[in-house]
This record gives sequence, structure tokens and C-alpha cells, in this order.
Amino acid sequence: MAAAARAALPRPFLPLHSSSRHSYRLAIPPSPAPRLRGGGAATSVTAAAAPLQQQVTTGRLGDVIEAQQFDRAALNEIFEVAREMEAVERGSHGAPSRVLEGFLMATLFYEPSTRTRLSFEAAMRRLGGEVLTTENAREFSSAAKGETLEDTIRTVEGYSDIIVLRHFESGAARRAADTANIPVINAGDGPGQHPTQALLDVYTIKREIGTLDGIKLGLVGDLANGRTVRSLAYLIAKYKDIKIYFVSPDVVKMKDDIKDYLNSQGVQWEESSDLLEVASKCDVIYQTRIQKERFGERIDLYEAARGKYIVDKKVLDVLPKHAVIMHPLPRLDEITADVDSDPRAAYFRQAKNGLYIRMALLKLLLVGH
Amino acid sequence: MAAAARAALPRPFLPLHSSSRHSYRLAIPPSPAPRLRGGGAATSVTAAAAPLQQQVTTGRLGDVIEAQQFDRAALNEIFEVAREMEAVERGSHGAPSRVLEGFLMATLFYEPSTRTRLSFEAAMRRLGGEVLTTENAREFSSAAKGETLEDTIRTVEGYSDIIVLRHFESGAARRAADTANIPVINAGDGPGQHPTQALLDVYTIKREIGTLDGIKLGLVGDLANGRTVRSLAYLIAKYKDIKIYFVSPDVVKMKDDIKDYLNSQGVQWEESSDLLEVASKCDVIYQTRIQKERFGERIDLYEAARGKYIVDKKVLDVLPKHAVIMHPLPRLDEITADVDSDPRAAYFRQAKNGLYIRMALLKLLLVGH
Amino acid sequence: MAAAARAALPRPFLPLHSSSRHSYRLAIPPSPAPRLRGGGAATSVTAAAAPLQQQVTTGRLGDVIEAQQFDRAALNEIFEVAREMEAVERGSHGAPSRVLEGFLMATLFYEPSTRTRLSFEAAMRRLGGEVLTTENAREFSSAAKGETLEDTIRTVEGYSDIIVLRHFESGAARRAADTANIPVINAGDGPGQHPTQALLDVYTIKREIGTLDGIKLGLVGDLANGRTVRSLAYLIAKYKDIKIYFVSPDVVKMKDDIKDYLNSQGVQWEESSDLLEVASKCDVIYQTRIQKERFGERIDLYEAARGKYIVDKKVLDVLPKHAVIMHPLPRLDEITADVDSDPRAAYFRQAKNGLYIRMALLKLLLVGH
Repeated sequence: MAAAARAALPRPFLPLHSSSRHSYRLAIPPSPAPRLRGGGAATSVTAAAAPLQQQVTTGRLGDVIEAQQFDRAALNEIFEVAREMEAVERGSHGAPSRVLEGFLMATLFYEPSTRTRLSFEAAMRRLGGEVLTTENAREFSSAAKGETLEDTIRTVEGYSDIIVLRHFESGAARRAADTANIPVINAGDGPGQHPTQALLDVYTIKREIGTLDGIKLGLVGDLANGRTVRSLAYLIAKYKDIKIYFVSPDVVKMKDDIKDYLNSQGVQWEESSDLLEVASKCDVIYQTRIQKERFGERIDLYEAARGKYIVDKKVLDVLPKHAVIMHPLPRLDEITADVDSDPRAAYFRQAKNGLYIRMALLKLLLVGH
Repeated sequence: MAAAARAALPRPFLPLHSSSRHSYRLAIPPSPAPRLRGGGAATSVTAAAAPLQQQVTTGRLGDVIEAQQFDRAALNEIFEVAREMEAVERGSHGAPSRVLEGFLMATLFYEPSTRTRLSFEAAMRRLGGEVLTTENAREFSSAAKGETLEDTIRTVEGYSDIIVLRHFESGAARRAADTANIPVINAGDGPGQHPTQALLDVYTIKREIGTLDGIKLGLVGDLANGRTVRSLAYLIAKYKDIKIYFVSPDVVKMKDDIKDYLNSQGVQWEESSDLLEVASKCDVIYQTRIQKERFGERIDLYEAARGKYIVDKKVLDVLPKHAVIMHPLPRLDEITADVDSDPRAAYFRQAKNGLYIRMALLKLLLVGH
Repeated sequence: MAAAARAALPRPFLPLHSSSRHSYRLAIPPSPAPRLRGGGAATSVTAAAAPLQQQVTTGRLGDVIEAQQFDRAALNEIFEVAREMEAVERGSHGAPSRVLEGFLMATLFYEPSTRTRLSFEAAMRRLGGEVLTTENAREFSSAAKGETLEDTIRTVEGYSDIIVLRHFESGAARRAADTANIPVINAGDGPGQHPTQALLDVYTIKREIGTLDGIKLGLVGDLANGRTVRSLAYLIAKYKDIKIYFVSPDVVKMKDDIKDYLNSQGVQWEESSDLLEVASKCDVIYQTRIQKERFGERIDLYEAARGKYIVDKKVLDVLPKHAVIMHPLPRLDEITADVDSDPRAAYFRQAKNGLYIRMALLKLLLVGH
């Protein structure tokens, strides 16, 4: 085939690892940079180019890979759009949004996480977009046969406009984003990151308390294994005059890397074994589940850790009237059921905020603000 | 946060178990009652309030939990709407319905039931609505980690407008409905109820025979374990001059609770071991599968029961010309394949009626008549 | 019920196995034949009749069951529509297609094949249609309970407008098509056929090279077990002056039935053990994965076969500038990763073409050209 004829052919899969790749570390790049990777000669306009071009001129996000990629300005923008999304969702029945009409999201989940998946899919649908679902891509016949994640991504990007990836390996989301010519959102990659959870946590604090600067935050429970509290610590450190209390059984204490990071950011923190005393001083008590699956055969250690710090009526009694209780869910008995009816129990509102945050991210990634 | 500021916040998850809860026992409440549970102060308008308010003014159903909740007036209304749905479905390609545009249904299936799931999802789609699917929520990571059904429901109701629940535990649907602020439809809860199956069965009798009063109905096969025939018996008892024949192997005879109920409702019934004689007198022969899974290791008993009452050409020979054969499906060999081509074989039309009944219920629950 | 009343009832499930059945062997029937099977008296207009009637007057395909069913004229038409689909997909975001609005596709997959499933579902969505998904119908509760494929099809056709079937048994697609009153597409039935893969392969050759007549094609790798290369051989034989080179380890050589068929069609072929020499003469090198699962316990034979013919930089060095490398995916290491960045690496474009071919087939089957 003549070179000219070839040039006219679609080339959706251009050479990878281009150095001109739009960096995901920059939430707000200094100037709009083309998302197309690898050369991107004028003749190689791809079938997927239209939305990407559109994104270049209006959008500001490339991919969503880790909590640290967002600065305060980016967070503000995301939260502002999330706030708008509450009205969009409310209006669904009378006049459903068409903002993402004609866009197709692929949820590629290598491990099941129904809560996260449903929340992303609801977000896409509430904006008028469509969804391709893979509930358990680990059994993806191709993956089972030894296909690399990169090859899977190159195939799936041909069928969709954005990929939401849940994976069991830390770093998988970054590898996917480095490969794909369409946006990638990390919906949790193993022990690594779960940035949309961190965003919805911070958004919930802002939405419930009204501010982020000056917040006093009690992190309770499994602080060693929970990527949730780790990502939240990274993100909240971007705000001023933060004070964090760590309340956890000894076996699952917050690790030094986070403590060092907080020190480097000038964030005050202290450890405490007195949940009631901490609760009396905090704006937010963030409870977490002790993750049994991390204890292996040491069920005795698990049982001891599990019962140590429970949020119950006694905590409510000392908790300030304006404060709230949060939890990433699922919860077992680390928050007792009689807490649910207290207006300060914010955890189901927090889950709902996941919808708004994901709507905001999908909108920002696909069509811009 | 000031109380005033808090009041302005969304409160989708209000205190539960309110006594002002719209009872699902009342298919047609004496006067429109607000669906919002728990106080429902004027300031706590929730993000989900719009459709609920809409439902309050137009809808008549709260949840669909058990066959007994419907009286004849409610059944008539459902059947009337189901009949209209046939035309809606027929018109799908030229002018698809937008009746449920912007509504989102979550199918939360804790055990797989593809037939029921696809039928609900097709129903939602034929009305212009959207679907969030969970094919096997038992592996829902949160449920596997020990989350209660109630917590799952409180999360999923934040992402959707109606929940269709299939569960392995009797009573699960009622627990879900007691928790949710959005409508819940029971798509089968263990050995408990499967009310939409009962509705489609009764609708099929009406649609095929033209009337329900005065029907002679032969229930054949596994009458002990089939929730289908049990629910059908409850529902058909609401009509006049019903006669029911029970034809079943001794090990799976109809239980006394149903017989007692029929007696209390003045419904005539008798047991028979002569299928041909019963077939010659009936308007409807309702055949069912002998459920192997209920026999445990007694395969000998299963095999004996299984071959005892088969609907075949000999049954067709004595069956009145106007009568029909029904079966909830799946069938094995309790109806022979050569029966399929007889116009009186109604079981696939019956399956199709499941679509119309579910369209009708979704419409009635979400936007009213 | 009177016969007249019965005649007015919907009868979506007419007697089966009618001899008047629209044959799927005829891609272009001599005259439009009604798709309705079995009698089809004028009074038995079914709920599903409208789209079928529409298809009769405008469409030309009945079902898609095997590669051999298509003649050159049919292939040309499909490829022409596929080419148009590239523009339809490109325009998705601004003005999404409504060509299949109101149509519902059921993907009934008895074995997982995420790539194929997502590609069909994306195709349907890009045309404005809707999807009912079954990711693993083998666990379909009814199939597990012993329901026949035919009964499942008769149920699912009541809920949808077209069925895409993936099955583990050869011949399953034909059985489904013989049963269904709506179109069926074979998305792979065990060791049997995978006709849409063969279509996208041939389309890719045409799209990349510009012609099909006169093509020199190297089939490499597992030629004994791969249904892909077998179907491709059948289909390419319809074109003129084709030359095929078979390059494979001895244990997985092309079987005699295909060789006999090529001989009968006057297609030249030869076997070679020199991949570089073949590559230097070909327009297309079609590499395939050695299927480990076919070797059972003979891992030694697998390992020997697997490493024998690798497409790498050395192959690129001798491959003509106009030629391309194809692969049905997934690939392991039979094509090295450094080949990906060469413009002649066509395998991801090939995967993308699967979208266009499936869009074309859905359009042709449901609304015609």
C-alpha cells in the first residue's frame, strides 16, 4: 500500500510512551497540551480523536491516578463541579442531563467492588452517558490466557471513550494511563491508591463542615492497611492548620511514611489511645474497618484489635454538635447501628457524595468544565 | 456547623423505621401518604425527593414484597397497565417509550436468576429507563466482608431510583423495603416469595382464558417446595368460584398451610392422582419442575417423583380446546417437547407476560398510572 | 376461549422447525421471504413482528452463523456498511446515532469472552441501541438446572430484538437460530465457528492493503486448533489469485480438510518452515497464539511449539513496506512488544475493526442497509 494511502487509514494505536504525553501529575497544565500520544502527525487523525481534541480545548484533567496529583485549585474545581452535580441528579427525572450523551465508559474491574462500580456507572448514566461493564475482568478470558494489561487496554480503548480501572496490583492504573489514548480513572489498584475515595472523603468534610482549613480530624481503626486513610492524609495535608489524631490498636498503627510526610507538610498530628477524648475535640471522626483479611491466621490479634475502638452512643455524647462521623464503608460493628439515626452520622451521605465526585470527574475528563 | 446550615444540606438517609412509613400492605392507601420516612421536616428535602414526591401524587404502590399485598382492585390496575405495555413494547423501534427516561433501576441479585433479571432489565429499557446491574451480589465485596443488607441498601439507594432485589433469605425483601427510601421489588427471596411471578401467572390466566372468576386450575408436580404454586394459590384465592386440583407425588404434596388458607377463603380444592382426569376438567394445567436440589441424597425418591406426572400428547388429547398449559420454567422433561407446537402450550407466552407485568410495576412504582 | 379470541392473542412462540424458515445460507435471498417461522397465519401477528417485517423489506441477512454463508456480494455490502460505521463512531459525541434506538440486544455468553462481548455491546451502543448482558450464562440458573438451549432462546427472544450467542458447543448457534424468531449472531461456538472474527479479519486486509484479490497471506502459529485461521481460509478463498503460506510447528499443522477445500476452490497454498522467507513475500502475516490449553499434559510439546515462530524485528526487516502484521489477540510473546510501534503492526487496528464489522452486522440484521 502506498504511504499516502496508509496515512489516510485510521491509526488509533499510535506508538506509545511518547515524551510529549500529557502528564497526569499536572492537574492544570500551564497551557493546553494535546492528549494524543506519539508523534501525532496531522494526517493521523484517529477515530477517537474528536473527543480528545475537544478535551484539549476545554478539559483540564488527563487521567485520575493518585490523590497526590491534585493541588488545591484542582480540588476546588472538582468540588465546585460536584456541587453542581447534585442539581443535575435531582433533575434526572424531569429533564435528564445529556452532557455525556454519546460517550461510552468501560468499567474494567479486575477484582469485584460493587459499590465503586455501581457508583461510577450511576454517575455516567446520570449524565446521559453509556456504560460497558466488566464485573470480574480477572477472569477476562484474555487475561487468563496471559495477555498483558497493556494489550487489554489497547483493545478496550478502541471500544470506549474512558476507562475506569480497578486492579489488584499497585501501579496498574499508571501503566494503563501510560498506554491509553483515552482518559483512565483509577478505581483502586491493590494496596496502592483509590483517589476517587480520597476526593469524596475530602468533599464530604467540606460539604458537612463547610471548610477544610483548620479541621481537626480523628482517624480511627486500621491505619496500617487502609489505603483510604493513607490517601486522605495525603490530601488533607494540602489544607492549612490541620490537626490529625491517630487512634488505633497497636498492631495496625499509622506507618512512618505518612507521619514523615505530614511532618514535611507542617501538619500537626498525635497518637492517642483515648477515643472519647479525641472525639470531644474533633470536627470529623473517620472510623475504619479492621481488615480481617490482613491478619492471616492470627485471628486472636484480629479479634483484639477489632473490639478496641467502637463508635457508639458514648462517642456521640462527647462529640461536638457540629461534628460528623465518617466511614468509607462497608462497616461491621465498629460503628453501632444506633448511631445511624443521629444527624451527625454522615457515612451514607458520604457514600452518596461518591456519586457527585465521580460525575464531576467524568464531566471534567470527557468534556471539560 | 450551624443548625440552619445543616438543615440546608442533603439528608438522603433519614432515621429509619418511622411509624409514618407508607405501608406496602396497602396497595391503594386511603389517601396519598408521603413516602419519605422519618420525620421528613420541610427543610430536609433530599436529592432523591423529586421522584418520590412525584410518586406520592400519582403512584399507588409503595413496594412489591409479597403476592398477598394485592387486592383485586390493585390486581386489575396492574393487569390493565400490563395490557397497555404490549403496545408500548410493540412500538419500541419506531417510537420508543420515554416514560421512565432518566430513571435508574438497580438489579441487586444475591443469587443468579438470569431469566428474572433479564426480564426486569428489558422491562426498564423498553420504558426508556436505565439499569445498574449486579449479577451476583453475594460476592459483592461488601457482603463478603460482612456488611448487612441494610447498609448495602442504604448505599445503593443513593445511586438509583428503584431496587429490584433477589436474595437467598426469606424476608430479605421486606427488610430492604423497610430500610430504603426508594421503592423495592422482591424478585424472589429464598423459599419466601416471588410476587412478580405470581402476578404474571394470574395475568397469563386472564389473558389466555379471558376471565379469572370461575377458573378450574390443576396444579401439578412439586407442590411442597415450589414457591410459585404457593404464591399462585394465595393470589387466585382472591377470585370467585375457583376450583383447584392438586396433582403431585406423595413426597411433594401441597402443605397444610395453603390448604387451610384456601378453606378460610372458601376456595374449593381436592387432591387427585389422575392427571388425565383432572386435565379433562381444567381451564389451566399448571405444571412445575420437581426440584432435585430439595431431595438431597435421596435421588431414588427424586427419580420416582420426577417421572410420575408428565404433560404429554395424552394430556393434550383430553385437555379442553379452550384450556392452556402453563409452567414457570425452566422445564426439564415434565412437559414433553412435542407439546410445544400445540397452541394450548402457553408457557413461553407466560414468560413473555413477565415482561409486561414488570413494565407495569416499574411504571406504577416510579411515575404512577 | 373461543378460537377467534385466541387468534387475537399474541403468539410470539409459534411452532418451530418450520420448513419455510428463511435460510441463513442465503445471504441474499432471491426474493424477500418472511422471517416468521411456522405457519405465520395473518392473525398471528406477534408483538415482535414489527421489526421482523421491517427487516423483511429492507434487510438482507437472516442470522450470522458461519463464515461460509457469505458470498462476495454479501461481503462487499457488509464491508461498505462497516466503512460507513467509522464515521458514525467518530461522530458519537456531537451527534450520536439513533439508527438502532429502541432496539435491544441480548448478549448470551455461555463462556466468558470479554473482548468479543464488549465489542458487540459497544457496537450496539454506538448505534443508539440498548443491551441486556449475561457475562456467564453457563451459570444461568436455568441452564444449570438442565434447561435446553432452545428453551432459553425462546425465553430470551421474548425480551430482546437480537441475540448474540457465545457457546461452548459446536453447532449451538445454528440450533439457536433454528429456534429463534429474531436474528441470532454466532459470537463463537466452541471449536466450531466465529464468523464475525473472520469478517473483521478479511475487512482488515481490505482496509489495510486496499484489495483482497491477489493477496499473499502467511498464516503462522497454531493452524490446527485455531478456528480463526480456519474460518479465514474459508473466507479468503472466495477471492481471486490468493496464495497462502502455512508456517507452523509440526504438532499444530493445518488440517487436511482446509487444504482439500482450498484445492477445490483453486487457491494456491504451500507449507513452509522459513518464516523470514515467507514474510519477505507476503502482504499479510497473520500470527496466532499457540493454544496451551490444547496440549493437555504435554507441556514439553507446547513449549517447543511456542518458541518456534516469533514475529520480531527480524521479521519486520524483511517484510515489505506495504505489508501488515495481524493477530486475532490475545497475544503472548509470539509477537514481541517492540513490533507494536511499527506502522505495519495492524493488530490493534484489527481489533478496532471488530467494532465496525459488528456495527454493520447489527444495522443490517435489524434495519437493513
